[in-house]
Amino acid sequence: MNSIEIIPITGIPEILANDNISEKISNQMEKLGIFYLKNDILCVAQKIVSKAENQYVNLKEIVPSEEAIKIARRDGRDPRLVESVIRESNEIIIATEKALIVEHRTGMVCAHAGIDRSNLPGEEDMILLLPKDSDLSARKIREEVLRKKQVEVAVIVVDTQGRAFRRGVLGVSIGSSGIESLSDLRGEKDRSGRPLLITILAKVDEIAAAASLAMGQAGESIPAVIIRGLNFRKNNTSSSQLYRSKDEDFFRK
Amino acid sequence: MNSIEIIPITGIPEILANDNISEKISNQMEKLGIFYLKNDILCVAQKIVSKAENQYVNLKEIVPSEEAIKIARRDGRDPRLVESVIRESNEIIIATEKALIVEHRTGMVCAHAGIDRSNLPGEEDMILLLPKDSDLSARKIREEVLRKKQVEVAVIVVDTQGRAFRRGVLGVSIGSSGIESLSDLRGEKDRSGRPLLITILAKVDEIAAAASLAMGQAGESIPAVIIRGLNFRKNNTSSSQLYRSKDEDFFRK
Repeated sequence: MNSIEIIPITGIPEILANDNISEKISNQMEKLGIFYLKNDILCVAQKIVSKAENQYVNLKEIVPSEEAIKIARRDGRDPRLVESVIRESNEIIIATEKALIVEHRTGMVCAHAGIDRSNLPGEEDMILLLPKDSDLSARKIREEVLRKKQVEVAVIVVDTQGRAFRRGVLGVSIGSSGIESLSDLRGEKDRSGRPLLITILAKVDEIAAAASLAMGQAGESIPAVIIRGLNFRKNNTSSSQLYRSKDEDFFRK
Repeated sequence: MNSIEIIPITGIPEILANDNISEKISNQMEKLGIFYLKNDILCVAQKIVSKAENQYVNLKEIVPSEEAIKIARRDGRDPRLVESVIRESNEIIIATEKALIVEHRTGMVCAHAGIDRSNLPGEEDMILLLPKDSDLSARKIREEVLRKKQVEVAVIVVDTQGRAFRRGVLGVSIGSSGIESLSDLRGEKDRSGRPLLITILAKVDEIAAAASLAMGQAGESIPAVIIRGLNFRKNNTSSSQLYRSKDEDFFRK
């Protein structure tokens, strides 16, 4: 087995609404002398996908509902922001001063429905929602690379999230294309020939975490990273398959 | 920023009780022509750490308590295994047919107290516990590399775990030394000069996930991986700092 490489694409210019992400990344790669190889995995930060898809909302245009006002008043939040979270969510799971944990409309459990206020140019009142369908966003980027560069790559959209039980945030996949999201190892044997007990590996999340190591979080942020040299299966599964449904979830009953 | 490399150390022989892990890894690295560089991060699979530390228990020697018998009978489990989980834990959080989620004695929330039955040679009734103190295990390996090879590396002990809300398992850090476990970015600014909202990054977990990509889970397993070329802070923090205490945990109240 050879080494796996995590290659940062530095110097990508600020992504604006309706930009073609695939093109911006490819152009910068060429400047850096980096060229796609077959089976590269292109990891793209959620933030630039949302920006390119113009997922901005101006809080000035949001009229909060009674529910939003109630939660916001109790927890010391901006009612317009709470309203935006509610609109993006199927359900609020936990709402306290410290956190607003929801089931996002995609089924993903996360804080604040993934709504972001950092690294946004311009107005104080602008917020950025998650992409409408991150699996679809990943597929479009993958198809664009195939069309323009004639190379088959996989694509993962990487968000930074907290989690239950463990402190700190890390990179996770919220959308993917051209790669199996969950690798089912059932039926495979361990070194002693016993069937494996740990059966389903969240491979795209491991890849997202690895990419996140090169992305950075602050001013130096690098919104695209290539993972090279990793073996993966190409089944057509999506990252939304990672989200546990409520009735199989021990922690939401 | 340069690429980060994930380098698998293939061909490490089966680790036996009381083996010197650092030596076994170093010997195999030399055979492969791989030599430590300063600031390499050596990631070691929990399983070989536990094996070397002889954390085996023979279920034949376990007399289950009444509590263990009750849980086991209700959920169709081996009462001796349930007893072993209880002995390794501060508290059982959830016990159903599908899962036994506990707070391990270290404070970490995980399934089955991290007890493992796969990839164990020999008897059907042998189980393998987590290392007694994985941060200490990591420190010992780091100090051994420094002593024998005169190179400063960081060490992470990688376990494979499930999580709330998302399907599939992935690599996480359960012990570390020579590297800051949680990177506090508070005070840093984003690209627009606003203070960052996402403030604390679980860097050792991202590294563990990256290492896990090269470790594999089944017969091909590779129990040691080097992460090379990653910038990290060397504060003397431990992976146990990743574990949320019960009273700051939204999902255990």
